[in-house]
Amino acid sequence: MKFHFFNANILTSGEIVSGDVVVENDLITYVGKHIDISADRKIDVEGNLLMPGFVNAHSHSPMTLLRGVADDMNLKEWLFDNIFLAEQKLTPKDVYWGEMLGIAEQVRAGITSIEECYFYYDEIINALKKSGIRCRLGLPSTFNDMKDKEMKAFLDNYVEALDGELIKPVIYAHSIYTLSEEELSILVDYSAKHKLPMSMHLAETLKEVGDCTVKNDCTPPEFLEKIGFLDRPSTLYHCVHMDKDDIRILADYGANVVTCPSSNLKLGSGIAPIYSMKEQGVNICIGTDGPASNNRLDMFKEMFLVATLNKATLYDASIISAIEVIDMATKNGAKALGFDNCGEIKEGFKADLILVNLKTPHSIPNNNIISNIVYSLSSQDVYLTMVNGKILYENGNFNIGEDIEAIYEKCQKITKRIL
Amino acid sequence: MKFHFFNANILTSGEIVSGDVVVENDLITYVGKHIDISADRKIDVEGNLLMPGFVNAHSHSPMTLLRGVADDMNLKEWLFDNIFLAEQKLTPKDVYWGEMLGIAEQVRAGITSIEECYFYYDEIINALKKSGIRCRLGLPSTFNDMKDKEMKAFLDNYVEALDGELIKPVIYAHSIYTLSEEELSILVDYSAKHKLPMSMHLAETLKEVGDCTVKNDCTPPEFLEKIGFLDRPSTLYHCVHMDKDDIRILADYGANVVTCPSSNLKLGSGIAPIYSMKEQGVNICIGTDGPASNNRLDMFKEMFLVATLNKATLYDASIISAIEVIDMATKNGAKALGFDNCGEIKEGFKADLILVNLKTPHSIPNNNIISNIVYSLSSQDVYLTMVNGKILYENGNFNIGEDIEAIYEKCQKITKRIL
Repeated sequence: MKFHFFNANILTSGEIVSGDVVVENDLITYVGKHIDISADRKIDVEGNLLMPGFVNAHSHSPMTLLRGVADDMNLKEWLFDNIFLAEQKLTPKDVYWGEMLGIAEQVRAGITSIEECYFYYDEIINALKKSGIRCRLGLPSTFNDMKDKEMKAFLDNYVEALDGELIKPVIYAHSIYTLSEEELSILVDYSAKHKLPMSMHLAETLKEVGDCTVKNDCTPPEFLEKIGFLDRPSTLYHCVHMDKDDIRILADYGANVVTCPSSNLKLGSGIAPIYSMKEQGVNICIGTDGPASNNRLDMFKEMFLVATLNKATLYDASIISAIEVIDMATKNGAKALGFDNCGEIKEGFKADLILVNLKTPHSIPNNNIISNIVYSLSSQDVYLTMVNGKILYENGNFNIGEDIEAIYEKCQKITKRIL
Repeated sequence: MKFHFFNANILTSGEIVSGDVVVENDLITYVGKHIDISADRKIDVEGNLLMPGFVNAHSHSPMTLLRGVADDMNLKEWLFDNIFLAEQKLTPKDVYWGEMLGIAEQVRAGITSIEECYFYYDEIINALKKSGIRCRLGLPSTFNDMKDKEMKAFLDNYVEALDGELIKPVIYAHSIYTLSEEELSILVDYSAKHKLPMSMHLAETLKEVGDCTVKNDCTPPEFLEKIGFLDRPSTLYHCVHMDKDDIRILADYGANVVTCPSSNLKLGSGIAPIYSMKEQGVNICIGTDGPASNNRLDMFKEMFLVATLNKATLYDASIISAIEVIDMATKNGAKALGFDNCGEIKEGFKADLILVNLKTPHSIPNNNIISNIVYSLSSQDVYLTMVNGKILYENGNFNIGEDIEAIYEKCQKITKRIL
């Protein structure tokens, strides 16, 4: 299938350029001035924005089912007394529908790649494959009473099945407070043996940092260094509570950090030191976290927060620019997730792109489109989302393998049952 | 004109109730269970949300024209070296179109009342009257070389013209750093003589507080107390930098505070102590500030921030609830602006209401609609906005006295000329 997008404002190499983009099969094959060319479908972008799709570098998408459950509570009470209890009632098929709803929300919001962390892997993989979205899937999360051998067999099974073009695996160790040092070592060894990257929630709350310091006599990044976790290519979610030395460790090891500001605000966790990380050269990405702690899967919302929260805590509006934040939400995420040639509008790159309406009262007069992306536009301005050359959302129509009304109906029934 | 809204999820008295709302002329005349009743227009709300329209308690709407100008700069550089220079090129007619664009953005976002602060009053009043939105208009802002007598004549002229049902005046003194103590006293005296409320930007930046302390040997609230400003009914914008004693002063005088979190974040001003103000009983309202410092006129965006920023700075997710924030964005604002019987869905109240779509991938499964309003919904979910019994926006159609395409075209031409 060949697409010719013409008359677009294209975000490419950090600039807005007027012109055309051609997509052939899964690849962007042309970015430049207007050309005459034949195509299966010609799309007049009418001066609107064509930009890379977003990489949501930390999500628990099926938690759409738990959106609005136990809001205005602190993380420990929220997680252990509410979320975990509700999750125990979920069946594999429930998770399939929750994942589908999360995918619908994300493609509608211009997200083209997800780092997904949730359980009932078979059903999640079913939903992902049916939908056509790009995803790195984290497993196992926790050991659930599995022994060393069982865990290895479990991982072997999925790692083989997942090594595809659109879906890849990451060895996901939930956190230092839910896994023992021995369990973490098993996962680190597995990751090293199979040349797989690792991921983890890290330094999300003051309590986690305090507990780690009492137990291990070191900060969470120092602990990960000590157990060899950071020798692996790693992606660390949150990293809210870190001093300069902690950040130095992550920078030295080339760890990727995923900041999830909405979730950190809403759960009372704190504000991550993005500016310090940026100054020390950490590859910063952006994630939504799950919809029970956010409560949206919306990278525009997160971009505004990443751009502005450190401005307010450091009393300096000049420390983070709009284009830096857009990079965090697109190409930095693609790099962290190991999706090569993704996250930018460039010839030879994967056709993960979105069209965004600029003719709205909140965008006009479009004095500065790059600024508008971070400070004025929102997820509902997205009117077309393409992943790997396939349109998954266009003008209210979803093309993700399930009917949207059926997804709504199933999810409403599930939450009635489990809450 | 009589409207019968049926099959709605109604936000009334802090709860969601299923049923109907009847509007006759400018008033809500029925809120309750389904009834059979004749009406000029019957609107099936289809289980969506009917709630009070938002009161945007601090705006400079015509700055839509300057959206995206000089982003990522600190307040002083942003205001004095960029915004003020661009504003010098604006003609009265430019401001008319900028106001119209701001009104379009706001009615589309479910805002039914504005506290407006900008210059070229005749053109702003023209736009406000044409549109049908509710507004309290602040003047004079600054003296612009006017002497005492001239200022009084200037104010007399507008105060008489503005005392209507939909538009009211407020004596708006820009700030303690742009007006002299003598000028402030003239405005306080005028306000007392004419029984008018007052408003002002206060304690927005650390610099303002520092300068005030050096010059006056007291904090900004202490200074306002000293000059008699707080003896007047007053509305104070921002109030970012205040200790407990400052807040106590404002609470004791019954001053209204308008928090504008997006603007405070984006300009690097800081995070307002909303929780302390709430605990001390201050009437807290919410504003967007102008679209050059935000860059949206979107109360959903502000509500999320008001609900979450203090959670993060105080490390406690339980300190502010969703319904408290909704009240700040609706009835607290109506109270501050002096619009009686506004800001709630109640019989006998003004028909300022909005319909909000709940059938979206980011709202389903609607486990908790009150929570969704603050944490999940967004301004583009609003599909009908009614002010004083008149529909100003419905499903993409604007009814604000000017064609939306004409507004877009005029505003784009203006910014091309002035930038």
